[in-house]
Amino acid sequence: MSGASDCIFCRIAAGDIPCTRVFEDEYLLAFLDVAPLAPGHTLLIPRAHHSCMQELPAELAARMGAVLPLLSDAVQKAVESAGVNILQNNGKVAGQVVEHVHVHIIPRQEGDGLGYRWNTCKCADERMQQISDRISAILQP
Amino acid sequence: MSGASDCIFCRIAAGDIPCTRVFEDEYLLAFLDVAPLAPGHTLLIPRAHHSCMQELPAELAARMGAVLPLLSDAVQKAVESAGVNILQNNGKVAGQVVEHVHVHIIPRQEGDGLGYRWNTCKCADERMQQISDRISAILQP
Repeated sequence: MSGASDCIFCRIAAGDIPCTRVFEDEYLLAFLDVAPLAPGHTLLIPRAHHSCMQELPAELAARMGAVLPLLSDAVQKAVESAGVNILQNNGKVAGQVVEHVHVHIIPRQEGDGLGYRWNTCKCADERMQQISDRISAILQP
Repeated sequence: MSGASDCIFCRIAAGDIPCTRVFEDEYLLAFLDVAPLAPGHTLLIPRAHHSCMQELPAELAARMGAVLPLLSDAVQKAVESAGVNILQNNGKVAGQVVEHVHVHIIPRQEGDGLGYRWNTCKCADERMQQISDRISAILQP
């Protein structure tokens, strides 16, 4: 689970590759993205190797969640941004590049040109209920 | 902190407005977005009213984090998606519409047309270090 030698984030966590770190504890590390979408773009990772959110132990996911309020607030204040996006991609189709779970904290400013190519879709009530039933069944088998 | 009468998510959490719920516990509620970006698009909210991540108590942020692995896995399986984006917007500039902290879980498929308008920017090493120092100083005053 930890220390995959071909994983760049494991190597950063191990100190083999330098980073501009902004926070760390026994379980987590946060550092500035070397290819930032905006100044202050920060990545939060667990030190242990887990490829995606779906495979992250709940306890570790809780630790990541717990630092987000302070960390996102600090990023926003440090660059005096007007807001922040917190983004976490799972799967190549979702834009995940490094297969070690990571959370992006992206400071936003008016007119920065960043954003989404999102369009809402139609989903019939019956289909919504069917999906909801499936999710509930998976969560509570 | 809780039960703002003009907050649509507080009213959903209180049961005053119906939703297609997929998960709930004492502190959290997850339901299908009524304007989904894809079938299965789910929102996770705390029951208590907090406007954004920066203002969320760490304990509650940890609870939200803790359910994300199972919840995102269940969403992905329910709609047989190839990946999921987990997105949390803070501030109007970041695309936040409802001022009650919420996490989007967005199933992704090949060729779904969804995605980002992100472009990396240049950030000189000195500026990176300066920002990092500021973030660290805010986190550990």
